[in-house]
Amino acid sequence: MFEPYRFQDLTPLFNPKSIAVVGASEKEHSIGNHTMKNIVEHSRFAGTIYPVNPKQDMVMGHKAYPDMASLPEAVDVVIVVVPAQFVKSTIEQAGEKGCGFAVILTSGFSEADDWGRAEEAALVEISKRTGIRIYGPNCPGLVNLNIPLGMSFSPAYKDDLVPGSVALATQGGGLGRNMLQHNARGMGFSIWSSSGNECDLQVADFVHYMAGDPEVKVICILVEGFKDGPRFAAAAKRAAEMGKPVIGLKVGRSAYGAAAAQSHTASITGSAEVNSTVFAQLGVIEVDDLDEAMDVAMLFTRAIPRGDEKVAVFASSGGAASLCADNVGTAGLTLSDFAPETLARLGEVLPSYAAISNPIDTTSISISQPQAFLDAIIACANDPNTDIVLAPMPMDYGIYTARGAQSMLEAQKTTDTPIVPIWFSERTGEGYHTLAEGGLVPFRSLRNMGKAVRRWIDWGTWRSGFDMAWTPLIVDQGVAAPATGTRTLTEAEGKRELAASGVPVTAPEVATSAAEAGEIAARMGGALAMKIVSARITHKSDIGGVMLNVAPADAAAAFDTIMANAGQAVPDAPLDGVLLEPMARPGGVEAFVGVARDPVFGHVMTFGLGGIYVEMFKDVTRAMLPVSQAQAMEMIGRLKSAKLLTGYRGQPPRDLEALALLVARVSDHVVAHAERIEEMDINPVWVGAEGEGALALDAVIVVRA
Amino acid sequence: MFEPYRFQDLTPLFNPKSIAVVGASEKEHSIGNHTMKNIVEHSRFAGTIYPVNPKQDMVMGHKAYPDMASLPEAVDVVIVVVPAQFVKSTIEQAGEKGCGFAVILTSGFSEADDWGRAEEAALVEISKRTGIRIYGPNCPGLVNLNIPLGMSFSPAYKDDLVPGSVALATQGGGLGRNMLQHNARGMGFSIWSSSGNECDLQVADFVHYMAGDPEVKVICILVEGFKDGPRFAAAAKRAAEMGKPVIGLKVGRSAYGAAAAQSHTASITGSAEVNSTVFAQLGVIEVDDLDEAMDVAMLFTRAIPRGDEKVAVFASSGGAASLCADNVGTAGLTLSDFAPETLARLGEVLPSYAAISNPIDTTSISISQPQAFLDAIIACANDPNTDIVLAPMPMDYGIYTARGAQSMLEAQKTTDTPIVPIWFSERTGEGYHTLAEGGLVPFRSLRNMGKAVRRWIDWGTWRSGFDMAWTPLIVDQGVAAPATGTRTLTEAEGKRELAASGVPVTAPEVATSAAEAGEIAARMGGALAMKIVSARITHKSDIGGVMLNVAPADAAAAFDTIMANAGQAVPDAPLDGVLLEPMARPGGVEAFVGVARDPVFGHVMTFGLGGIYVEMFKDVTRAMLPVSQAQAMEMIGRLKSAKLLTGYRGQPPRDLEALALLVARVSDHVVAHAERIEEMDINPVWVGAEGEGALALDAVIVVRA
Repeated sequence: MFEPYRFQDLTPLFNPKSIAVVGASEKEHSIGNHTMKNIVEHSRFAGTIYPVNPKQDMVMGHKAYPDMASLPEAVDVVIVVVPAQFVKSTIEQAGEKGCGFAVILTSGFSEADDWGRAEEAALVEISKRTGIRIYGPNCPGLVNLNIPLGMSFSPAYKDDLVPGSVALATQGGGLGRNMLQHNARGMGFSIWSSSGNECDLQVADFVHYMAGDPEVKVICILVEGFKDGPRFAAAAKRAAEMGKPVIGLKVGRSAYGAAAAQSHTASITGSAEVNSTVFAQLGVIEVDDLDEAMDVAMLFTRAIPRGDEKVAVFASSGGAASLCADNVGTAGLTLSDFAPETLARLGEVLPSYAAISNPIDTTSISISQPQAFLDAIIACANDPNTDIVLAPMPMDYGIYTARGAQSMLEAQKTTDTPIVPIWFSERTGEGYHTLAEGGLVPFRSLRNMGKAVRRWIDWGTWRSGFDMAWTPLIVDQGVAAPATGTRTLTEAEGKRELAASGVPVTAPEVATSAAEAGEIAARMGGALAMKIVSARITHKSDIGGVMLNVAPADAAAAFDTIMANAGQAVPDAPLDGVLLEPMARPGGVEAFVGVARDPVFGHVMTFGLGGIYVEMFKDVTRAMLPVSQAQAMEMIGRLKSAKLLTGYRGQPPRDLEALALLVARVSDHVVAHAERIEEMDINPVWVGAEGEGALALDAVIVVRA
Repeated sequence: MFEPYRFQDLTPLFNPKSIAVVGASEKEHSIGNHTMKNIVEHSRFAGTIYPVNPKQDMVMGHKAYPDMASLPEAVDVVIVVVPAQFVKSTIEQAGEKGCGFAVILTSGFSEADDWGRAEEAALVEISKRTGIRIYGPNCPGLVNLNIPLGMSFSPAYKDDLVPGSVALATQGGGLGRNMLQHNARGMGFSIWSSSGNECDLQVADFVHYMAGDPEVKVICILVEGFKDGPRFAAAAKRAAEMGKPVIGLKVGRSAYGAAAAQSHTASITGSAEVNSTVFAQLGVIEVDDLDEAMDVAMLFTRAIPRGDEKVAVFASSGGAASLCADNVGTAGLTLSDFAPETLARLGEVLPSYAAISNPIDTTSISISQPQAFLDAIIACANDPNTDIVLAPMPMDYGIYTARGAQSMLEAQKTTDTPIVPIWFSERTGEGYHTLAEGGLVPFRSLRNMGKAVRRWIDWGTWRSGFDMAWTPLIVDQGVAAPATGTRTLTEAEGKRELAASGVPVTAPEVATSAAEAGEIAARMGGALAMKIVSARITHKSDIGGVMLNVAPADAAAAFDTIMANAGQAVPDAPLDGVLLEPMARPGGVEAFVGVARDPVFGHVMTFGLGGIYVEMFKDVTRAMLPVSQAQAMEMIGRLKSAKLLTGYRGQPPRDLEALALLVARVSDHVVAHAERIEEMDINPVWVGAEGEGALALDAVIVVRA
């Protein structure tokens, strides 16, 4: 039986009262020395430090202990930097003693070889037995910059100490450090976890903790693979409930990336499409690169969007105004219409040759008339119709640009509307540093600005539409282990199952003789579809196992033909007879609904129109289950080919309600049998005109054997 | 009669022997003072300088003259910084004297008001009359950094003096300055033109000159609108002939951008789709942002691609290796397979836990074993299967990163294969500057890296396939002025014209009475299509003016019905009768060919499959004329829906040869009547199975009245 996710409170890990450093050393350049220095010299840690080193009495002014067993108390955090072969006994002792968390920096475990894998498994076993939770191994540790406290061997820790409200959860260390170094443009961070092999605690646990941490405004994750998909989904749901945006960059969107990530962290990278589906559904903002993650994070530290924000562009160069407006347009953003009083004020302070409607081009008065420049940006930022001011700054003009930057800081004091500079010169002069230090963290490219603002607003839209009562099936049930054997239901079996769950299907009957086929056909009347029934034959039409538009009088002969074709094509296949059902009314549109079990995120539904739309244009939409009728309507609306359903070229609008209900019923069916159902393909689904309904014409269901 | 483009040699403009500065001044902070200082103090100009100022005898140590007429010689370049009302007389004098070029920095012309527009028109008239060529007005001037010589008032000129082989042609100044400031990462520039209002010389002229300038390796343009499309096409063709890549960023890809650009420079921004078509066809590499332009330019300064380059990834962080490989994959690039000797060498120098296949992850030996790091990057860069080495550097680790950068410089000395670092930390430390100053200009983002390398390689592919004998129609004929009145040919007229040009069309006949319809139908035999003929009625089926699959016996009655429907729908329309033609064979695929006259770039063809493909998926492809049969085949291949033509789901492959020939014949027809044809829509084109041909079933041609 699956147990719902429980998340341990990680406060003692990120805000410990006592720390032991096993392997603490005074030897310069050693890992144990770097780790001690980071705590003793570069942190403001007010708790107790216990160096553990059997060869020393004191380490860096703190009394040392020979081993964990000798410590006077059970510490909150045990940092472990001893070689791999000594780690297990250390954790054993720490666990027995009742310590809360072990942060294992040491490498040489599951990422290395068979010995390491076995050793790591033993650590997990100790954790389960004693209750000590493990962070790592094979990781650079973690930092809490709001103390600051660095439980890390990184010699770079001391250089990246800008505190703030952005929390980072990464697996590897290098790319996390990259994000942290956005402090060079004024970004501040609260906590950073970089959890390496994740033998116990993982990104999901940190996201859950960050969601509840009052010092965190926005959460950024960078993952090569999710160790536990449902746990992550539960954590992301928690962040949604707490109103905190999660920004995600997932490696593995190409085969090269997936292969490299797999060899780097031994993670299952999973399907990129499924990952994007999960992110989108849980409001995790997917980004394409690290700088984009930081751009979006920065916006959230400035304001929480509603979803309908309008932007103003404030430039001092006509070219920059045009190019910025162009990016506003290509990103699908909306320029605000300035209120009359804003236009009046701008007309007053700016020269006649300036552009005062949105986008604003002050022209070179930023150089010649600094007061007018300041007055103008204040007027722009206080415009009642504007939600965010974008200020492109194409070049560094030394002192003039610095003065402009200063004006932006002053203008920001007059309003809550964020003023966001875009410093897109590669040269970062005094003006740049003025902005960074003054809290107006600049974007670094116009294109990224457009993408980031778009994502920021879209999150607001997502949040206002998200149903907090919805919980992914996998959070309730987890992901079942892949089936060792599977069985494909016959069409008749599959349709009976679906019918029992309320999915509208054709009501087929199976004839086992030509005579019976004739009787059934006569009873059904009208044109019939006839298909072979055999568990061994799935591609029925390929082997002549399907005949369409059969008149009742021809049904008996058709039975014989189909049986003969099937017998010839697959001589040893057991044939259970021939299925008969009425032909679908002509003129319908064909859709399909598929469900497959992803090894990371469980059952995911794929929906679209059939044929060329999926095959040529990849025009499909996906969702984790459960999918309600309302959610199914949204899925339909996301298709490019949705127009075909809403009345294309004089065709009648299709019965969308019925189609959405069918999709929801399919979801219900899978939810009710999630352990058993491996895969399902309902294709085609006939979609009639409004009022005519929707009907599953074929169904292939694969279940555990 | 259209005259082919002639381009004047701009050598005396960019490398003048003598310069006059009209408005030269010693008054601090004045434009005339800045301009003089830039030439006298911040340039290495070896020629003669003539300040022109009626109130001074000497300016900054040079003898001054009261006006242009008093100068002892006709100078190569006259720089004009006097107020707008004095510009015309200055140019008049300079032109009369025989001076070569006037660089007018002064503003207040066509960008300002009616007086300015009239004044600018007068300048053009003087230019035509006297032969003096005008650069500007309303611009910051131009620079030649390989001298260096700055003919500009910009106080920033002296700060941006890194020479090199990238040439810039922009309209506005701010965004050009932005590109120049990529010198902060080591980019070097040759010449930069920023031509403001472009009343005479324009971006096209500079591109043409740069194509022939031996100091230029790659040309970058940034435009809000092309003043003269054909002139630009001719210049771009010249660059192609000289083997020089042109990189283009065009503002106006959204309605906001187009509107802003129009108000900024009064340019016709033109259609973004047409612009992209022209760029693609002439090999101009279209980019999305300024930093991307510089990234692509940097690659061309390193090497000229063939089109099949393979990349190696060399990283010291597993995460960076994965994410870089991921971007390599999403950009559609190919990782090289290392040769056995490369793998052997990497195995020798790197530790066992490093990843030695592509992507390489050296792990932290970059810190602990610098020699091994150096040996490894040399082995990677000398791999015979690798064309370019991408070295992601996620973070600044101070001295360690600087040493790694130094190793890259050393490794680069051993090979011609470009080693390209990607420094994607926001913090730029010593290592960054080592790279920038050492000539290994770093990329700044992984995503941009992928896009830039893709574009670089694609240009190689384009060049190897480009037919140098091909010249755009507009270069031969220009763009005719928009027609003041137009006339739509009837379907029968249009088809007769097309047939005369060899376009396969149905052979319709027009009946003017029911009896005649019956006779024609009997002669034609088989099922017929019948359509109303009236110059006033273009949407024939909407008003009941079309009947399909008419049997010959029913043709007379159908005539009456169609005439009655048309008479009722458009009572006062003159009706010329009813067209009869055999129905197309069933089972064909429907395509369409359209031609429209773009106000900037002339006739552009649009091609695609009909119906949903164009309406829902915008699956069309465009080309400037002329289009040969071979080019038409390429256009077909670019469609996503091309599969429908090559044998989708058991359908027979279509007659692509015949379809491509039809497209080429349509092109021939428009080329032969380019002055007259405004617009053409051949829709549908019936495309039969292989050997069955292709046939234009309908044709609407709009011509000058």
